[in-house]
Amino acid sequence: MPKKYVYLFSEGNESMRNLLGGKGANLAEMTNLGMPVPNGFTITTEACTRYYDDGEKIAPEIEEEILRYLDELERITGKKFGDEENPLLVSVRSGARASMPGMMDTILNLGLSERVTAVMAQKSGNPRWAYDCYRRFIQMYSDVVMEVGKEYFEALIAAMKLSRGVEQDVDLTADDLKELAGQFKAEYKAKTGSDFPTEPKDQLLGAVRAVFRSWNNSRAIVYRRENDIPGSWGTAVNVQSMVFGNMSESSGTGVAFTRDPATGARKLYGDYLQNAQGEDVVAGIRTPQPIDQLGEIMPDVYKEFVAIADKLEQHYRDMQDMEFTIENGKLFMLQTRNGKRTPFAALKIAVALVNEGMCTKEEALLKIEARALDALLHPIFEEKALKAAKPIGKGIDASPGAATGHVYFTAEDAVAHAPDGPVLLVRTQTSPEDLAGMYVAQGILTAVGGKASHAAVVARGAGICCVVGCNDLIIRESERNLYINGVTVREGEFMSIDGSTGNVYIGTIPTVDASISDDFSIIMGWADEVRRLKIRTNADTPHDAEVALKFGAEGIGLTRTEHMFFDDDRIPAIREMIVSKTAEQRKVALAKILPFQRDDFIGIFRVMREKPVTIRLLDPPLHEFLPTKEEDIRALAVEMSPLYDGLRKTLTDNGLLVSNDVWERLLYENLNATIDSLHEENPMMGHRGCRLDVSYPEIAEMQSRAIIEAAIAVKKETGIDIVPEIMIPLVCELKELKYVKNLVTGTADAIIAESGVDLKYHVGTMIEIPRAALLADEIATEAEFFSFGTNDLTQMTFGFSRDDAGKFLPEYYDKKILESDPFQRLDQSGVGKLVELGVSLGRSVRPDLKVGICGEHGGDPSSVEFCHRTGLDYVSCSPFRVPIAKLAAAQAAIKSK
Amino acid sequence: MPKKYVYLFSEGNESMRNLLGGKGANLAEMTNLGMPVPNGFTITTEACTRYYDDGEKIAPEIEEEILRYLDELERITGKKFGDEENPLLVSVRSGARASMPGMMDTILNLGLSERVTAVMAQKSGNPRWAYDCYRRFIQMYSDVVMEVGKEYFEALIAAMKLSRGVEQDVDLTADDLKELAGQFKAEYKAKTGSDFPTEPKDQLLGAVRAVFRSWNNSRAIVYRRENDIPGSWGTAVNVQSMVFGNMSESSGTGVAFTRDPATGARKLYGDYLQNAQGEDVVAGIRTPQPIDQLGEIMPDVYKEFVAIADKLEQHYRDMQDMEFTIENGKLFMLQTRNGKRTPFAALKIAVALVNEGMCTKEEALLKIEARALDALLHPIFEEKALKAAKPIGKGIDASPGAATGHVYFTAEDAVAHAPDGPVLLVRTQTSPEDLAGMYVAQGILTAVGGKASHAAVVARGAGICCVVGCNDLIIRESERNLYINGVTVREGEFMSIDGSTGNVYIGTIPTVDASISDDFSIIMGWADEVRRLKIRTNADTPHDAEVALKFGAEGIGLTRTEHMFFDDDRIPAIREMIVSKTAEQRKVALAKILPFQRDDFIGIFRVMREKPVTIRLLDPPLHEFLPTKEEDIRALAVEMSPLYDGLRKTLTDNGLLVSNDVWERLLYENLNATIDSLHEENPMMGHRGCRLDVSYPEIAEMQSRAIIEAAIAVKKETGIDIVPEIMIPLVCELKELKYVKNLVTGTADAIIAESGVDLKYHVGTMIEIPRAALLADEIATEAEFFSFGTNDLTQMTFGFSRDDAGKFLPEYYDKKILESDPFQRLDQSGVGKLVELGVSLGRSVRPDLKVGICGEHGGDPSSVEFCHRTGLDYVSCSPFRVPIAKLAAAQAAIKSK
Repeated sequence: MPKKYVYLFSEGNESMRNLLGGKGANLAEMTNLGMPVPNGFTITTEACTRYYDDGEKIAPEIEEEILRYLDELERITGKKFGDEENPLLVSVRSGARASMPGMMDTILNLGLSERVTAVMAQKSGNPRWAYDCYRRFIQMYSDVVMEVGKEYFEALIAAMKLSRGVEQDVDLTADDLKELAGQFKAEYKAKTGSDFPTEPKDQLLGAVRAVFRSWNNSRAIVYRRENDIPGSWGTAVNVQSMVFGNMSESSGTGVAFTRDPATGARKLYGDYLQNAQGEDVVAGIRTPQPIDQLGEIMPDVYKEFVAIADKLEQHYRDMQDMEFTIENGKLFMLQTRNGKRTPFAALKIAVALVNEGMCTKEEALLKIEARALDALLHPIFEEKALKAAKPIGKGIDASPGAATGHVYFTAEDAVAHAPDGPVLLVRTQTSPEDLAGMYVAQGILTAVGGKASHAAVVARGAGICCVVGCNDLIIRESERNLYINGVTVREGEFMSIDGSTGNVYIGTIPTVDASISDDFSIIMGWADEVRRLKIRTNADTPHDAEVALKFGAEGIGLTRTEHMFFDDDRIPAIREMIVSKTAEQRKVALAKILPFQRDDFIGIFRVMREKPVTIRLLDPPLHEFLPTKEEDIRALAVEMSPLYDGLRKTLTDNGLLVSNDVWERLLYENLNATIDSLHEENPMMGHRGCRLDVSYPEIAEMQSRAIIEAAIAVKKETGIDIVPEIMIPLVCELKELKYVKNLVTGTADAIIAESGVDLKYHVGTMIEIPRAALLADEIATEAEFFSFGTNDLTQMTFGFSRDDAGKFLPEYYDKKILESDPFQRLDQSGVGKLVELGVSLGRSVRPDLKVGICGEHGGDPSSVEFCHRTGLDYVSCSPFRVPIAKLAAAQAAIKSK
Repeated sequence: MPKKYVYLFSEGNESMRNLLGGKGANLAEMTNLGMPVPNGFTITTEACTRYYDDGEKIAPEIEEEILRYLDELERITGKKFGDEENPLLVSVRSGARASMPGMMDTILNLGLSERVTAVMAQKSGNPRWAYDCYRRFIQMYSDVVMEVGKEYFEALIAAMKLSRGVEQDVDLTADDLKELAGQFKAEYKAKTGSDFPTEPKDQLLGAVRAVFRSWNNSRAIVYRRENDIPGSWGTAVNVQSMVFGNMSESSGTGVAFTRDPATGARKLYGDYLQNAQGEDVVAGIRTPQPIDQLGEIMPDVYKEFVAIADKLEQHYRDMQDMEFTIENGKLFMLQTRNGKRTPFAALKIAVALVNEGMCTKEEALLKIEARALDALLHPIFEEKALKAAKPIGKGIDASPGAATGHVYFTAEDAVAHAPDGPVLLVRTQTSPEDLAGMYVAQGILTAVGGKASHAAVVARGAGICCVVGCNDLIIRESERNLYINGVTVREGEFMSIDGSTGNVYIGTIPTVDASISDDFSIIMGWADEVRRLKIRTNADTPHDAEVALKFGAEGIGLTRTEHMFFDDDRIPAIREMIVSKTAEQRKVALAKILPFQRDDFIGIFRVMREKPVTIRLLDPPLHEFLPTKEEDIRALAVEMSPLYDGLRKTLTDNGLLVSNDVWERLLYENLNATIDSLHEENPMMGHRGCRLDVSYPEIAEMQSRAIIEAAIAVKKETGIDIVPEIMIPLVCELKELKYVKNLVTGTADAIIAESGVDLKYHVGTMIEIPRAALLADEIATEAEFFSFGTNDLTQMTFGFSRDDAGKFLPEYYDKKILESDPFQRLDQSGVGKLVELGVSLGRSVRPDLKVGICGEHGGDPSSVEFCHRTGLDYVSCSPFRVPIAKLAAAQAAIKSK
């Protein structure tokens, strides 16, 4: 039997969503439920993928099948395509598996020709309606099928209104509209070189092709990428006989939700527009009435609609978003689907549905989009104020929330002015040296960079609102002002940014604080009941740890020990350590760092108490900590001069040092040469991670000492059994891990023995180099736990530098080579294969191996689902993503049942 | 039964080499052959690895076993350790599985004490001999076992000679030596804090420990790394009763080869030293006699020795290197092993052994070290002249051969002076801009860089002698001279370099040209008979291709299309292409490059004829081609100005352009900004390879056009069926490969159709990104062949940047984390796992998939063996490594039988 590419609504049902698309499946379901749905048929998503496989052509057998179903539709409706007496008019609408509102194309009133319109005008007694339909159809068809831009037609309408001396479209008469239709067709011919098609079957096939084509228009591609919808799914096409909301005063059209999509409140919510077609509602030219007023205008129809709405919500067990049309007092349902809602409403509705007995907790959990929780955890702009505000520019939404503050252009200024009021740090880009300024800011705005840039990563970790890559922004740091799209903003003036949309505003916009509702806690509780994955957090400070605990983190999966190295009171010692030329010099510097590191860990252990804490040894390339400006290098040289006192004395004693200037120049040139020698061509694959410990064992020893001494101190202080997990980064070889592990255990065991305290600790490793994943069975003989560092693993597996890939990846999306950013969403087929391999090899030699991930992916729902399926023990993410990860972990557990 | 750690010589045999080490196994074999071998026993290599596993301790049961065998030795010899009447003295020598001459430690005369020496002095009637033995023993033991430096003892000997007014050691009397022994023991006590051990069993165990320890001394580690010997093997220890070549005038010691190790000629070759111990021969203090003079001194002994030598060569079926000692007219064999030989001799001997019927061709092939062939293909210094020359410095041996030439410091100067005589290009480091100067040079010397540096890679590819990383070299380009260890060399003066040793010389040293001998051709012929792997070459020019063909290359595995981009007549167009801002500009520039590229390929196809040629599309990051100096950027800006003629006219017409200076500044700043925007943090993982084609499809189109038009032209010209293989680099995803392949096939098919010529071509891909190897089953659906780019694959799999790893890898060798440079020798466990995975996944969907490698590893014998085992079809290497690869491939085939 050949494959079936077309289904009547009555042949389908809800479960056929993959084949019929969401809209088609629901139209079929409503048809089967006996609801008033205009007749029609659906051309499947497989026809769409076939269209692309065949080189953007509809195969002859599919074309024939479509026309066969058109005949059937004519038979059912008793109308005929192109018939003057009883013409069949249809709408042609896209409908993918997942809802993609407004992303693809729709054509209404298909089947009209001049002759049919004339008859329709006469028979209906409403010629204005008939010609309005006709000119709309020409306009839509030209736009959608032939890609003749809308603007030409809008210009013709504007010219007609001017010549008739009227202001509104509705003031144009039937004759005006008829004349316009003629002008439209002339315009069509001028632009396309051929006559406007009069044969309805040609129109239909053209429209179907246009809908297929629209699956790959640029806004659909962008929408899919942002919503994780695979490009391979394709769209279905729904062909439905027209009903007309614009036929009379007892006609109309509307959209409604069974609950308030903004608040989740249980009441019918929507708009109704009398004597209009659907596109008028969408276009927003006329102001619609609230849906409940329909009860006064047409009480019976309203009652019927309310009953259908209730039935649909009961049937789908979720809040519904419906479209309907009333034609001369008769109600027709054109669409129903699970309604989009705000994150706030999503929680409210989920809890309500369970309380009302409409679904189980597990079903309710699946109705909430995990990533949307982000928005509930941060301040947002007041809705009304936001509507009134006009963005001056747009960047990339890097970290959610809303921020208003005085603009400052350097980290120092931000720190200095933070006590006087909210601060917005605006920079071309940020670097680790800006950390202090970033932490005091309400928001961070940068001119360059993407979602993986330094500003974005730090901001998300700290829950600070952040917009990056705002290309229109020109920062003139020396003049203490910025310029954006014609406006100059001086230091200290107000700007606002929306980290959830990327919008940038001049002036202040009032914000509303995040408030974790009761519903939020209930949902988190349900998630905790079903999930298997543990959720840890990436936290570098006691404060981060506290925030994460508040959100329910069950441990720390990653503490970056270098994170606090930039504090003013530490950086001199760090730099001294880095430029040391002997192990002795290095030990002197490390001894200065030790108390700081120990205090960091004491603070973290105190907060986390008995919960596990994984601390990673020093990871980044050392030159990140070094000064680059000449003045800073000179200052560091002077700071370090005591190390050379002996040499200086010798020089002086021999009469070789005549002035202090010469001495300082000597020191400066020496230091400068050292800094130069640390330069690397590809620092990401250079001297970093445990490679530093192999070169300078005293670093691992100092850090191990700080960790173990801190654990002992907190254990003594609180009596709680602290069990630190010490993690060795960037391992690529068993013997390398062994070498560094020996440094750790040698130091740790000696301190523990000396202290007389019974302290346990674990030593494990990051798996972030492909070779470590490939040889995980060897690595696991020494590692007590694995933590997949999927950021670096993604870099090495793809050969994509995070710092540079932003320049060429957009072409990869445009050309559909990649569907999403592998640094945001774990590449399950490639990087995921290494993760799976690493887990199974590791557990093959150490069955109780604890395995987690601590890359940015730990807060991405689809990646969390992968981690669940792969049998990981935990994911670790930034504090503000802990709730997302918990929900995603619960959803993964439910789906895998 | 407990493991046996000690074997009498009579218990072992040749086949137990892994357990007994080479020396021990051969001593056992000679013993079994009934040859005069002093009795003894061997402590196994397993005892050594156990020693390290136990934390550098000899386990009690092994200690006991050693002492039990000592008793047995006493029983067999009838002598007793420490006995005054009939003392047993032994030598303790290391002996690993593979020969590591001079790398580990030896102790002679063990068992002596003051009392024993006194008795021995008396009984032998030769007190000088006895005390000489004694002081030698104290000296060796102190040095080897207790690490009290030799220099202290040498100083005492020197002082004694001074006080006695003599010049030679042999002029010291028995009393002098006795006094010296006393001084030595005092020195020992001063340095170690304890008395010199008098108990022979303590001495023995100390010596065994010292030999075990010497397995990991730094020169042994370096030797192993350079000779691919695993650190895990360990060394055996041979304990053998002493015989004394220094007992009388009818005593002596010597070493001999059964054939001349330099020429391979069939005659006994070696040295004999009368009345001496072995160490005197090695130390070179006294001049030995040629071995045949022994025939005159002791004809019977000589006859016996010649017979033994013949028997040993027959027995081992290879040239032997033997040590012997004559004690009072009686011959003792102390060692035999397959002798080291020059590459020239290796070929000669292998052919001779087959001709003499002593072994088969396959056995003969296995006797030649593949990598040593390198030395036969390049000029070398005249042996005598080289011995007389003293190196002024040393760098890294980057490309073999010898070169003498006038020193020049820039590529331009090298090119300018090349017609006047041989040129040595000396630079701090080279870059692609220096290529022209590199190609005309006899040799290249750089101050920085390692074996993977630009200079090294280019030189090896072109067969040019090269020394890199000569740290003592200070080049003062602006002053046109260089400074090295106290000597200044001016431009135009002579220097010489040895690319096989890294030595650097002032002045000229005569060279001898490479000559491919008949033996070489015979051996290559035998290799061709047995190998399965095809050997291709990496060649970018017709000249490279010709050289490789001469060496027997069977095709080209890699043509780097960018290689010739630096020619003066091309680089402007390349740069114009790179800084183009629109596809149109880029096409204009590419059109200028097309004829050059086409000519390159025509030249290569003409040389290679029907042999396969794989051409890789543009690979490196574009900024490599851009100028970095301001003056060069200005020049390029002016060159490109015609592109902006229209804009200039508009500005001029509007009176906005008042001077040419302003215009040039505008162009310069614009270009400068473009160049800045191409900067990358990690260019190795940045915008390169097929990523360039995704961004700029017109590049792939131009290159495909050049290849196909060239193939058509050569096919028309010669009638030969040219079948180009077009290779897409840096692929990480099937859809990416598809996209670029479509560009290639679209262009190629159109040109072929238009030409009317029936031309086939293949499109394949590099597998050099881990993800491509992991997903090779997907990639193979589109790729007709795979070529593993093991350079990049090694970078990504380890996360090691080739440019930077040189800074930290030496620590990895020192700490025994890595045993060899993974960029020189393929990492079989990690990178190799990806290669195996890639091959098996690829062939699972395309059973006839052609698979090769084209990284630097293609010329490394152990990597070639891996490629054979993994079922690759071919390896591709630089032209001068083709013979090495052929022999290695043959050896792999023989071994796997």
